[in-house]
Parts: sequence; C-alpha cells; structure tokens
Amino acid sequence: MHRRRTVEQAMRAACARAGFGEVMTPTFEHADLFTLRSGQAVIDEMYAFRDKGDREMALRPEITASVIRFYVNEMSNLPKPLKLYYLGNCFRYENPQSGRFREFFQLGAELIGSKNPESDAEIIALAVNCVKASGLKDYVVRVGHIGILKSLVQAEIDDKKAAAEVLRMIDKEDFDAIGDMFDARAIPRKLFDRILAIAETRGGSEVLERLDKSEASDYLREIFVNLKLHGIDDCQVDLGIVRGLDYYTGMVFEIDAPCLGAEKQIMGGGSYTLSELFGGEPVFSTGFAIGIDRVMLALFKEQPEDEYSLVDAYVIPAKDDMREHAISMVAGLRSAGIRADVDLMRRSMSKNLKYASAIGARYAIIVGSKEMAEQSVTLRDMLSGDQRIIAIEQISEEITKLL
Amino acid sequence: MHRRRTVEQAMRAACARAGFGEVMTPTFEHADLFTLRSGQAVIDEMYAFRDKGDREMALRPEITASVIRFYVNEMSNLPKPLKLYYLGNCFRYENPQSGRFREFFQLGAELIGSKNPESDAEIIALAVNCVKASGLKDYVVRVGHIGILKSLVQAEIDDKKAAAEVLRMIDKEDFDAIGDMFDARAIPRKLFDRILAIAETRGGSEVLERLDKSEASDYLREIFVNLKLHGIDDCQVDLGIVRGLDYYTGMVFEIDAPCLGAEKQIMGGGSYTLSELFGGEPVFSTGFAIGIDRVMLALFKEQPEDEYSLVDAYVIPAKDDMREHAISMVAGLRSAGIRADVDLMRRSMSKNLKYASAIGARYAIIVGSKEMAEQSVTLRDMLSGDQRIIAIEQISEEITKLL
Repeated sequence: MHRRRTVEQAMRAACARAGFGEVMTPTFEHADLFTLRSGQAVIDEMYAFRDKGDREMALRPEITASVIRFYVNEMSNLPKPLKLYYLGNCFRYENPQSGRFREFFQLGAELIGSKNPESDAEIIALAVNCVKASGLKDYVVRVGHIGILKSLVQAEIDDKKAAAEVLRMIDKEDFDAIGDMFDARAIPRKLFDRILAIAETRGGSEVLERLDKSEASDYLREIFVNLKLHGIDDCQVDLGIVRGLDYYTGMVFEIDAPCLGAEKQIMGGGSYTLSELFGGEPVFSTGFAIGIDRVMLALFKEQPEDEYSLVDAYVIPAKDDMREHAISMVAGLRSAGIRADVDLMRRSMSKNLKYASAIGARYAIIVGSKEMAEQSVTLRDMLSGDQRIIAIEQISEEITKLL
Repeated sequence: MHRRRTVEQAMRAACARAGFGEVMTPTFEHADLFTLRSGQAVIDEMYAFRDKGDREMALRPEITASVIRFYVNEMSNLPKPLKLYYLGNCFRYENPQSGRFREFFQLGAELIGSKNPESDAEIIALAVNCVKASGLKDYVVRVGHIGILKSLVQAEIDDKKAAAEVLRMIDKEDFDAIGDMFDARAIPRKLFDRILAIAETRGGSEVLERLDKSEASDYLREIFVNLKLHGIDDCQVDLGIVRGLDYYTGMVFEIDAPCLGAEKQIMGGGSYTLSELFGGEPVFSTGFAIGIDRVMLALFKEQPEDEYSLVDAYVIPAKDDMREHAISMVAGLRSAGIRADVDLMRRSMSKNLKYASAIGARYAIIVGSKEMAEQSVTLRDMLSGDQRIIAIEQISEEITKLL
C-alpha cells in the first residue's frame, strides 16, 4: 500500500503540473452508460445488477464514460479545453489472472474540447510522464493513427459490417482470418497486402517518412514533432493499433511494460468523440487510462519490494511506573512528525525489544526510572544494537537528524 | 477534490505518525460478512446482488468487517498489536440526504490484539488527531463505556431480548418507550431512574468522579488519564452512547461537528470482538471510522471554499510561429514543478488572456517573436495586469519565487 500510494501521488502530481484537475464519479451507474460506449458485448463482462427500483445498474468497467456523462450534465459550459483526470476502481467479470483482476484501478485523463496534434501530444506526454513518475524504467510507448487503416479499409470494402470485422481482426493481429475472409469474399489479395504493410509499420519516428502523404499521416507527423517539444523522443510509431471500439477517431496510443509478458499493456488511449452518445453537443476529446495494478506488478518485477517499516521509534517503559512517561513521550515524538509507537501490551523489556525488531522499528527508546530522574532516556539503534543516553528534550530533534 | 485530497492526506499522515499501516479490501464481499457483523436488518440497507455464480454479494456498507476478515485470513500470525487503517468508499441503500449519501467515504483504523485503557486511548487519540488534521475547528469528542449501562440492564432484566431492546432504546434516547415497556412488564420504576441517571451522565472528565466504583468506571477513568498523556484534554464523558450493535464490548466514542445539525456525527468507534464471527480466534480490538463526506461538509460550513486555481502559469504564443517555443517552454516549467498550461486551441491573444483569466491562472507568459529573438518572454501578473520582460532561462526560477 505504501508503494502504491507513493506511485499514485507521483502520478497525481504529474497531472497537476500539466494543469489537469481531479474529478470523481460514482462507482456504479446505469448499465446503459457503458453499453452506449462499448456496445452490448460489454454486458457479459460487467458486474450488472438490478437495484431496488428495478433499474439496471453496473459497477463501472471504466471511467471515461462517467467523466463524459459528468461533462455533458454539469461542465459543458466551462471554458475549453477542459482538462480532467481521475483515479478510481473499476470492475470486470472475468476469470481473474495475473494483471487481470476483477477489481482494478485506473488513473486516466481526458482533454475535452480541442482537436489538433498539440492536444494529442499533450495527452501522450502526460501519460508518459505519469508512467515515468511511477519509477518504471522499461516501457515502450507506441503511437498510431486509426485514420490511416480505417480510411483504407472503409474506402475499399463497401460492406460496413465486413469493414468493421476486418478492423477488429487487425486489432487482434489475426491476419490469417483476414486472408480467409478475403478469399471467401473474393476481395483482391492486393488490398490484403496494403493492409498488412500499414499494420506492420512499426519503428522509430523515422518510419513516418516512408508513409504516403495523407491527412492522417501528416497529423501523426505533427504529433511526433510536438512530443519532441515535450522532451519525449523515444516514442515508437505503430500503425497496427486499431482498437475494436468504434468511438476512437484518430490518434491511438498504448504503453507496454515488456516485463509483464502477455498482459504487458499498462496504458491505452486516443482521441474520440463520445458526448453526443450521452445527449451532449459533439466535442472532440483525447484521453488515456493507466492500469495502476499492472504498473505496480511491473514495478515489483523491476525492483522487488524494499524493506518498509511503519515505525521510526518504538518507546518502551522499563517498568510499569514508567508507562505514563512513555505515552507522553510517544505523543511528543508524533507531534514532531516522527512515526512513533509505544508498548500497548504491558510487555517485558525483552518481549518489547523483540516486538520492536519484528515490526522493523529503526530505534527503540527505553524509559527507565534512573534515566528519567535525570530527564534522560536510552536510545537504542535497532540495527546495530548500539545504545546511548540522551536528554529527553533532545530526543525528537536527535531522531529527526538520524532518520 | 483538491480540498478533499488535502484532508485525506493529512489524515493518512496522522495515521502513519501513530504507526498504523494502510490496508485495502475489496469493494464488494459476500453479503454474509456484513450480516454476521450487523445483523440481518442491514440487508435492507445494503446494495446486495447475486453474481453470475449465484452468490449473494453486497457493496460494503462499512469496512471494519472486511479488515477483520482480512486479519483472520491473512494476518492472524503477525506480531500483536496490529495497527491498520483504511480509506475507502462504502454504500448504503437509503434515501439520500445531506450527509447521508448512497456512496460515502470512510477513513478508519483498527488496533487488533490488545485490550487495556492505553489501547483505547491510543485509538481515541488517533481519531481526534485525524479530525484535527482535517482543519476542522469545532468538534466535540464524547467517550463512554458500554459496560456501565449494559451490565446494569443485563443484571436487572432477565429476559435477554428485552434487555437488548432496552439498550437499543437507550441508544436512540427514546426514554418514553423504556418507561412504557417497564410499565407494561411491571419492571420497578427505580431501575428506570438509575438507567436514566447513567444515560444522562455527560460532561467534562470531572463527572467521572461522581460515578460508582466499578470495573467499567475505573477503566473509563484510566482512559481519560491516558488521553491527557496524549495531549487531549477536551474530551467529554457521555455514558448515553450505547450503540445497537451487539459486538461493542467496552469503550465507545463519537465525534460530532455541531454545525451539521441532525447529521452531526462525523466519527464513531469503540472496542469490540469480531474475529470469532469469521472463524478466527477471539481477539480484542478497538477502532473507529470517520465519515469523510461529513467532515468535508463541516469544513465547508466553517470555511467556504477558497479560490483554487489549477494553473500557476499559462503560456501564450503571440503568433502561430511561436507555438513550438511555447510548448517547449511549458514542458520546461512543468519539469521545474510549476503547474503550467499552454494554448491548445490556437486562439488569438485576447481570447487566450480571457481563457487564462477564466481558469484562474496566476501568471501568463507571452511568447512573442521580438522578445524570443532576445531570448526573453513577457511575464504578466493576471491579478494586477502588470507586465515585464524576463529572460527565458530565468522564467522557472522567477515564477517559483513569486508563487
């Protein structure tokens, strides 16, 4: 929890530096909200239930839909662009496995009301800065543009359903299935080769030079120019990112932590329009969501848990008549900002030292009657075992110095 | 959200200084867990649902039961006492009203494995220090001992159900109902007078002197001695706190924010045993839960929201060819820890200044071509309207100094 909270705080700070304000939305909403965004298929993966008013509710599978609903209901008159972020738990009804929990946490951001390469780069930069802030060393940022493949597929395949199916297969990298479908429908093999060539366009920003000139490829080039201005120059191009969801409109991007293997994706995002689904005016948005649990898994793989102790100083009364002195002392240490604890079990000295060691207390302060008579206590370094006498009035200052 | 997160962080810090470690438990659990603790009646107030495996689940109405389940399953072998705290959302199915939301947040702590006045005082002190840390000025801490009334009622009324009913009526301060019941059952009026006298025992710690000597009253006196050692000397005695729940065993306490009126209670706690209900060995515990939403309501009553701006510096390119300079500049400001934003809408100067003012940006930085040629920008104080030219390399340092 300590490490997780530290990571969350670092990500929040990155959002705040970029001028994003935090919002919070309810843990469950009308199930419609999520099916409107993600399609009926999401129902099977949701924790849906009827409440006592017989309304179909669902524990949120993601938070973007709630933020946009919130925007449509309460914030649509605020000056644009609106920069919002959130950190909350989400739920999916699937067999749990490593990196796919039934309850999981996402930190995400939405930039609402502007559509241009600067805005998309701003969102990518924020996602990268959040991941950096977590302390993760090894991650890969891949940026694509859904318009390049989408416009090709939609222009060449008239049947809308078939076109959508092809995009889904591209997203799953199931090119054999595309080949089979093309053969069955007698779609020319040439289109297949062009799709494959684009979907396999991956590499450093230099591959952008090889792309045919189009609105989408120009836009993507501009994003990469802007990312450089943000000090981010290690993003990969990946035109194979398509995403099954219909609502992505242009830039799409993902971050992976390769050490996680099959479940390596720790972030997904892109530009989209969604508000009109919830009854709002159409508005361009761009955003992302980071899977905090996966980031934590990756961090633990990169660097196993450090020893973490909850207590800087553990105060031990040498005898029962020193108990009250010990309690006032621990209150004083806490007021000075030291994480301090005191014997609450009326234990013997040796049992107290054993407990202090078990909880990893850095120092023990032994309150004995002889020392107390001289306004002193014994300060014991629990790592080295060294002990020395120290004046009571200096104890907070001394421990603060030592920590 | 900013104020809420600040309050949460301050409370977390108070828990950490007292040597408590944070735990997190799932948002929903088997409904049994909560009915075991709180009785079947709680079902009507819970968001309960059957999952796809036909299990009766419930969104948690409180978090103590989950923490104790966690303790029984995973932590029962850890050295005692265990000091745990949590911060999370809970749910109740009631008509929402001010201070009673369907989704609400609690910060709570449990001290597991020790039963003595020092431990109870430690928990009371932590609750008080959390409330203090929130910045709330006007609050009342009331401490009682359930044993004083409970032992009297149980000793004098043989019928267990009737005794429990009397305790429930005391908790609701419905003394008329007790009178009626006593009349109906021909219970002597004398007992009623004794119950009333105890239930109405309220006041400063001096009222403790008036109590008959008993195990419970001695224990309560010791708690007040210990609270003084913690630097807490403004707690009230209130022997009328009983709580309907069967599982409280001794000390009980509450904190009120009087400005909230009818829903003034912002914290409830006491000592209890619970683990045996979940299949664990019996273990004494003492804990509390603070209602964060009510604390926030009270804080806003005491001090209306301060102006809060998300942006320290808003960077405006004077012309389109200054856009890239503006974006690198904002990236530099953010790296220096400044909350900075930049025009993402390609707006005119006047519209940008209007937007900067609307979002409450403290400073605007205008990037013009003439100034850029001299490696300078214009720094505008958005409150006073004062402008001055400043060297680019000094901009982060200068703004940090000004903030």
